Amino acid sequence: MQQKVFTYGQPFLLESGASLSNFHLSYTTYGSLNAAKDNVVWIFHALTANSRPHEWWTEMVGDGKIFDPSKYFIICVNMPGSCYGSISPLDLNPATGEKYFHRFPFFTPRDMIHSYQLLRKELGIDTIRIGIGGSMGGQQLLEWAIDEPELFEHIIPMATNAVHSAWGKAFNASQRFAIEADLTWNEKNENAGKKGMEVARSIALLSYRNATAYNKTQSDVSDETLESFRSESYQRYQGTKLSARFNAFSYYVLSKGMDSHNVGRGRGGVKKALDRIKAKTLVLSLEGDILFPPDEQEFLATSIPGAKLELIRSDYGHDGFLLEFEQISEAIKEFLQINKSKE
Amino acid sequence: MQQKVFTYGQPFLLESGASLSNFHLSYTTYGSLNAAKDNVVWIFHALTANSRPHEWWTEMVGDGKIFDPSKYFIICVNMPGSCYGSISPLDLNPATGEKYFHRFPFFTPRDMIHSYQLLRKELGIDTIRIGIGGSMGGQQLLEWAIDEPELFEHIIPMATNAVHSAWGKAFNASQRFAIEADLTWNEKNENAGKKGMEVARSIALLSYRNATAYNKTQSDVSDETLESFRSESYQRYQGTKLSARFNAFSYYVLSKGMDSHNVGRGRGGVKKALDRIKAKTLVLSLEGDILFPPDEQEFLATSIPGAKLELIRSDYGHDGFLLEFEQISEAIKEFLQINKSKE
Repeated sequence: MQQKVFTYGQPFLLESGASLSNFHLSYTTYGSLNAAKDNVVWIFHALTANSRPHEWWTEMVGDGKIFDPSKYFIICVNMPGSCYGSISPLDLNPATGEKYFHRFPFFTPRDMIHSYQLLRKELGIDTIRIGIGGSMGGQQLLEWAIDEPELFEHIIPMATNAVHSAWGKAFNASQRFAIEADLTWNEKNENAGKKGMEVARSIALLSYRNATAYNKTQSDVSDETLESFRSESYQRYQGTKLSARFNAFSYYVLSKGMDSHNVGRGRGGVKKALDRIKAKTLVLSLEGDILFPPDEQEFLATSIPGAKLELIRSDYGHDGFLLEFEQISEAIKEFLQINKSKE
Repeated sequence: MQQKVFTYGQPFLLESGASLSNFHLSYTTYGSLNAAKDNVVWIFHALTANSRPHEWWTEMVGDGKIFDPSKYFIICVNMPGSCYGSISPLDLNPATGEKYFHRFPFFTPRDMIHSYQLLRKELGIDTIRIGIGGSMGGQQLLEWAIDEPELFEHIIPMATNAVHSAWGKAFNASQRFAIEADLTWNEKNENAGKKGMEVARSIALLSYRNATAYNKTQSDVSDETLESFRSESYQRYQGTKLSARFNAFSYYVLSKGMDSHNVGRGRGGVKKALDRIKAKTLVLSLEGDILFPPDEQEFLATSIPGAKLELIRSDYGHDGFLLEFEQISEAIKEFLQINKSKE
């Protein structure tokens, strides 16, 4: 495993018109590029994760796992805006000499993949065997497979969508409101908005799970309790847990980035955009996913030429894409096998 | 229509052990009690509504409507803790000479109906022809129908449950966190926590509707937008709209009251409690209700002796109990007709 930083010497331009100097990406690689340069797996992480999938997708990445470094050259980049090493609101703004904080612009998923393209070229990669990502990671993957249709041999977008839905945007908006309602959010320091972000995380959790998941794992045993219920403690715990490892400025801009996701923008609509994809595509849905409901992946599968759709059974809803590794591994194996035999 | 206040001269004791002097309830009546005293309809309102169903259930209460004041003596009481006239956190605490604010105790739905029993006796009511309520209103109705099994002839609990679920409690907890994260919440004045309550309302809205409802009514037309989406404005609008008419202290204690709902408490469990109900029961479910999912009403209907269950079709999820008045009126008419012909 190697942890590296890619630095881009020129100003990096965003869809919003904003421009960033001192642009850099933190990324992690596992294994090495083979002589034929055809063993690349590119993994895209979701909202609050980092470039180290061996930490958050332990059963998928590693020796003997489906994404095995002895076989593949695996790359994962920390999303720009996130606080795990890539350019972020906590970096120094060369224009002002202060940290960006509130002035950091949001990256659309399209901006993100434009920056990954620079890194790809730097690494001498002309073809990617497998691109895979769930949720906001899947949004980036779709953008890239549309923007460079010849680049990917296989793509596996999971629990994701072509346009972030009104419903998803409403969830994100409420989370940003929670950060804004925390009066410390106006301060220019790294801890601004922490309490608000804790609330935001507890809201997000509701959309990552569902009624079944909460009722199964967070119900109280006794009928006699009047207050301080288990699911309340769970909500609080998840908030403070995130707050210990994440930053509210990053959370805020990444959330805006997710909302901006629309593969149809500037391409004559969503259908036309998805029709450009040439990669062999396996779309994965998670049963009971209330944030990215299965009908969104059904839409992807019917719009991407030749795409295959599979529903993963889960009690965890959206979070299932991080947890149902056995079913996901099986689905991927079968998908790669079928495509191989066709070649 | 008459708007009145019922004052209870003695200390009112709550399940939590708290005791309140100066106890009073604001209530609204329509029509008048007939000589046989057998024409009472008791309506229970939900979280942020008031005792005036002709305002929030316009198509259900009024001349020519299913709950017609020329036929029925209709009563609705403002929940204690709410800010529409009943005892609330904004009342003076005789023990301190200051307003209660943070020191106001929460009322369980059971505490609430204990207080309605005092009013019922005061009004000389010994039988209630129909009790009806949705959501937290339904929780109170169930408590009462269990506590006084002979009182109700018919009950119609809608979009409600026997125990507030872990999922529902998680939603309420996040809403209270939003209020707590607003630093003004610590202040002792009526506007404390307003911003936080706006966030809370926007969270609650997500549970009152669902993905289908948001995507149908709050999607953007253009593919070109990068930010300031319609569903974000909707979330903000709903928050400020509530904030103009409601109080954060009331919101906070009512939310705790909802969480405490468990008909099984002190009664040997939920099944035993529901088995006590003697009223003819029509349970109504709302299609796509993610806050009080239809399986909760199925449980009610299978546990209440002889209960009938009906699913109301809706695009609005939980909010459907306030909006699908045609289907609800039809279901009630049929239910009352069938029971009449049996008599």
